[in-house]
Parts: sequence; C-alpha cells; structure tokens
Amino acid sequence: MTARIIDGKAAAADLRQRVGQVAARFRETRSRAPGLAVVLVGEHPPSAAYVRSKIKATLEAGMESFEHRIPAETSQADLIGLIDQLNADATVDGILVQLPLPKHVDEQAVLTRVDPSKDVDGFHPVNVGRLSIGLDALVPCTPLGCLKLLQGELGDLSGMDAVVVGRSNIVGKPMAQLLLQANCTVTVAHSRTRDLPGVVRRNDIVVAAVGRPELIRGSWLKPGAIVIDVGQERVEQPDGTRKLLGDVAYGEAAEVAGAITPVPGGVGPMTIACLLRNTVVAAHRREGLPDPEGL
Amino acid sequence: MTARIIDGKAAAADLRQRVGQVAARFRETRSRAPGLAVVLVGEHPPSAAYVRSKIKATLEAGMESFEHRIPAETSQADLIGLIDQLNADATVDGILVQLPLPKHVDEQAVLTRVDPSKDVDGFHPVNVGRLSIGLDALVPCTPLGCLKLLQGELGDLSGMDAVVVGRSNIVGKPMAQLLLQANCTVTVAHSRTRDLPGVVRRNDIVVAAVGRPELIRGSWLKPGAIVIDVGQERVEQPDGTRKLLGDVAYGEAAEVAGAITPVPGGVGPMTIACLLRNTVVAAHRREGLPDPEGL
Ligand SMILES: NC(=O)c1ccc[n+]([C@@H]2O[C@H](COP(=O)([O-])OP(=O)(O)OC[C@H]3O[C@@H](n4cnc5c(N)ncnc54)[C@H](OP(=O)(O)O)[C@@H]3O)[C@@H](O)[C@H]2O)c1
Ligand SMILES: NC(=O)c1ccc[n+]([C@@H]2O[C@H](COP(=O)([O-])OP(=O)(O)OC[C@H]3O[C@@H](n4cnc5c(N)ncnc54)[C@H](OP(=O)(O)O)[C@@H]3O)[C@@H](O)[C@H]2O)c1
Repeated sequence: MTARIIDGKAAAADLRQRVGQVAARFRETRSRAPGLAVVLVGEHPPSAAYVRSKIKATLEAGMESFEHRIPAETSQADLIGLIDQLNADATVDGILVQLPLPKHVDEQAVLTRVDPSKDVDGFHPVNVGRLSIGLDALVPCTPLGCLKLLQGELGDLSGMDAVVVGRSNIVGKPMAQLLLQANCTVTVAHSRTRDLPGVVRRNDIVVAAVGRPELIRGSWLKPGAIVIDVGQERVEQPDGTRKLLGDVAYGEAAEVAGAITPVPGGVGPMTIACLLRNTVVAAHRREGLPDPEGL
Repeated sequence: MTARIIDGKAAAADLRQRVGQVAARFRETRSRAPGLAVVLVGEHPPSAAYVRSKIKATLEAGMESFEHRIPAETSQADLIGLIDQLNADATVDGILVQLPLPKHVDEQAVLTRVDPSKDVDGFHPVNVGRLSIGLDALVPCTPLGCLKLLQGELGDLSGMDAVVVGRSNIVGKPMAQLLLQANCTVTVAHSRTRDLPGVVRRNDIVVAAVGRPELIRGSWLKPGAIVIDVGQERVEQPDGTRKLLGDVAYGEAAEVAGAITPVPGGVGPMTIACLLRNTVVAAHRREGLPDPEGL
C-alpha cells in the first residue's frame, strides 16, 4: 500500500481563505477588523520567525495585527501590565504570547492573566477546562489543526481507535480531548508507555507529538492507519545540512499507512490557519455574534 | 485465581481518621474549624440522603457543616445569590451544590459561580483545567477516591495500561487525567467504542463508570487485572427486592481479576472521605498554609 499524502498546505490555504471571507463580513458589519495582538519577549530567533509568519498571515486574512516586541529583561510585572492593557483594549480580539518566555518570568502566571475570551492559543485553565467539559472553548491551534486534517480525510471519526503519542499541555492532552469529543476510543501514550509499538499497532488513527525524530517506525503501524505527524525537529544530516524531521519514519510509514501528513507541509501550516480561525471566532463571540459557520 | 477484595470502607475510615487529625490541628492553630457548606435544592430523596451522610461525616471529622436546604422553586438568581454569599463567607472553605438541580436552573451557570478555591467537588472549569495542566487543583471526589484505592493496592502505577470505561465530566474524564498523571498509558472507552471486551482485555487496570449493571463480564478481563467498579444502580430482583449492582459482573470477575472493589463497600465510601479531604485541603490553601501531608 502507498499512503495518500495529506496536504496540510492546501488545507491550510483553504481554511485561511474561508477565514478571510468571514473577516471581510465582520469588517462590513462592525466597521473594524478582527484584531490579533502578538507579544514577543526577547530575541529568540525561531520565536521571531514564528511571530513574523503569524503577523503576515493575519494581515493577509484582512485582520488587524498589533505587534508588541519587548526586551528580554522586561519584568514580569511589566509584562502582566501589558497583558492587562490588551485585555482592556476593545479592538483586540486575540492575544498571543509567544513562548518560551525568559526564565525570570512565570509562564503560567502570564498565560493565566490573558482574558479567556481573547486566549486564542487556548492555554488558559478556563479554556482547558471548558474543552474537557464540552463547553464552548478556544482550543489550542495545533491539535485543532490535526483534528481538521483527520476530519478532512475521514469525515466522521466516531468509533475509531486513536492513539496520541505525547501528553504535553499544548498538543497531546488537548488532542486527546478533541478525539474523545469526536467519539474515538482514545489512548494516550508517553515516555513511560511500556510497549509503544504494540499500542501504536492497534490504532486506526495515530497522532505523534513527541519531538523524537523518526521514533515511530513503519512496522509499528496497522495497515491503512491514518498518521498525523506533529513532530518537527531540525536534524543535522551527514553532509552537514539540516533537515526538518517528524516523529514518524516517513518513508517506511508511507508503505503501510492509509494516509499520512508530510513534514514539512502537514500539520505545520494548519497551526497558523487555526490561529486565524480562533481569532475571528473570538471576535464574533466577543461581539455577541453567532459563531461563523464552516470554520 | 480469586481476587483480593479491595476494602473501600476500611480505606475510607482510615482517610477520614487522618482528615480528622488534620482538622484538629487546623482548629488549634486557626481557632476555627474547616467549614463545608452543602446546598440542597428541592426534595429529591436520594439527594437528601447523600446530603445527610455528607453532613454527618463532616461533623464526625471535627469540621463545621453549614446546611442550606432551599425549595425546588428557588429561582436561578436566588441560588446564585446564595453561592455569592457563601463565596464571601470566610468561615466557609468548601461549597458543595448537590446535583441534580431542578430543570429550570442552568447547572453549569451555578457550578461556575462557585469560587474555584472553595470548589470541593472539582467541577469548576478552572479546576478541571488546572488538573489537566498539572497545576494544584481540587479534584472530583469519586475519581480521586478510585486513584487512592489503586495506589493502596499497587503503589506506583507508572507504566501500567489502564482503561476508563465511561467519559462523564464527574467520573470518567477526571479519572483518565489522574491515571495519566500517575504515568499510566490511559485509554478512554464509552458507548461508541467498537470492541469493548477487546479494549478491556488488554489493560492492567479497569475503572468502570458506566451505570449499566454487570455490563463488564469476567471473561473480558485480563487475568490479574485490578478492577475498580464505580457503578451503583439499584436493580429490582426477581423476588421484588432491590439490589445495588456495579458495572462489573462481580462473581465472574472475582475469578479472573487480581483485585476488585465490591459494590457496595468499594468506591462509594471513598467519595465522601475525599470530600472531607478536599475540604480540609481547601481550608489550608485558603489560609496560605502548605497542603497537609499524607492526604
Ligand atoms: N507543527 C506545529 O505547529 C507544532 C506545534 C507544536 C509542537 N510541534 C512539535 O511537536 C513535537 C512535540 O511538541 P510538544 O511541545 O508536545 O513536546 P513536549 O512538551 O516535549 O512533549 C513531548 C511528549 O512526548 C513524550 N515522549 C518523549 N519521548 C518519548 C518516547 N520515547 N516515547 C513516547 N513518548 C515520548 C513525552 O512524554 P513524558 O510526558 O512522559 O515526558 C511528552 O509527553 C515537537 O517536535 C515540536 O516541535 C509542532
Ligand atoms: N460510588 C460513587 O460515589 C459514585 C459517584 C458517581 C457516580 N457513580 C455511579 O457511576 C456510574 C456512572 O456515573 P456517571 O455519572 O459517570 O454516568 P454518566 O454521566 O451517565 O456516564 C456514563 C458513561 O458511560 C458510557 N456508556 C454508557 N453505556 C455504555 C456501554 N454500553 N458501553 C460503554 N460505555 C457506555 C457513556 O458513554 P457516552 O459518553 O458515549 O454516552 C458515558 O460516558 C453510575 O452507576 C453512578 O451511579 C457512583
């Protein structure tokens, strides 16, 4: 079997276009654009690059972008002051604090300060809890993107056996909640799992969010499984160049799986598209409008 | 094999005694007892019986009990007014709103009104989110009791395969979070699970929280599995009497399992003991004291 390649770039372009249409209607009726504030503390180069692509995508979708670059030495109190100011600003619908924060700042204290209705990263305990309970929530972008790719591939996921490898707060755990809500029988595996190959082999859906390049082998997969690879690690190759690798040994897996996301071009592009989606949804909820359809 | 019987009554008596000791020290240093307010709306007889046993256990542990019985017709606004009053009352450390509430009341609106620091049932989205993220939280009593029984039986649960059958907000989902935190590989099954016997059979730990008497058969279990039966349904017997049955066919299961909780006398008594535990923990946190040890 040769797996279908799940085209995350195309899915993301499609979602961004639909977000753009919704944003255009919002601008017409509300006489303002949905607004996303991005806070970048310090100069961490990969973070700066992420922030640049987020801002570019925000503007391309016809939304307003507010950029706050502040020095690495900024005190926690000042950072919290900035969050309070953004919470109070009616033109800001979404607030994204780019992680990681400098070591002298308590990350959880800052994330918990963001108004949950503007928490487009979905990291605030209130949104985490609301997702679990099944109430309207803002859901972390990467797992939301994975769910959309799975639904695009499979339609209804009900009754399928799904494993999430990894249990981080930003990917693994919310992914498990979303799959459970979609009526999968969900297993969460992690570094203490005894027989990872055996666990992976009995599942129809495999979401890998580990950060260990090519940990998951083709021989571990159930034939026909749908594989979503969240991992992206830059690994030096023998010739000295650096290559972006996922958590799944792609070549082998593509021989066994029914469908698989490539790295790059799979989950990555969906993360930013879902950030735009969350921002425009937050804007609607904050204005008391019904959720936009089809996002 | 004949399973060990996990004695929930003894474990609960032990926990209640330790809570009583902690409460006594609290009374000495703070010159007041930890206080639990119980709100009962209407006359639903099983709820009234639960509330009576909770109040009795609270007093026996040397804590203060505040009972608020209000008529079924009470408006949502008045009920929320009462919650606000209890939130503001410094002598109240824990607030328990007995469920179910009358149909004209939005249950979620009431539960979300409880100050999270007094939410000894652990149902507030903030506590649900904090549990998931791994921050200090007040955790729902029944799954916390199940975890304590498992740890009493097994010690460290790390690396074990565990399945939770049922995904309610009050038992199944928080149970899964606790098992994940204890480093189990956790599967959540539910009514849409395709092959429940097969899923149950591959797990070392089975927690059943379904409410379908004797759904889980002895033949489904892995030999030696540890079985925690949360189910308790009153079922009419052929002779017209009513018997309390769990979700597991106890007689069959006891032939295969390594250890099993009986119904009654297993999980049930631990729920109230954990309510007392949560109340005394909430009292310590509210007073800025470190968490009492060994609870
Ligand atoms: N495409 C995107 O937009 C996007 C977004 C976010 C993250 N990512 C990528 O996704 C990957 C994971 O990110 P993260 O933030 O979730 O990572 P993380 O916080 O480091 O979590 C990694 C998880 O993998 C588990 N794990 C580690 N080694 C394992 C092993 N040998 N077997 C099984 N499980 C193992 C860990 O288990 P323990 O809990 O037991 O330690 C942990 O739960 C990274 O490569 C990251 O770059 C991509
Ligand atoms: N001992 C105690 O202190 C205590 C405390 C609380 C509850 N309980 C007892 O525990 C039981 C469960 O309570 P609950 O509040 O969690 O119940 P609930 O809210 O009704 O949830 C039941 C769960 O079981 C699942 N389910 C139903 N039929 C199933 C089937 N045939 N196969 C697999 N899963 C099935 C449901 O799946 P779906 O989500 O797909 O519908 C649901 O997730 C009840 O008997 C209750 O009395 C005892």
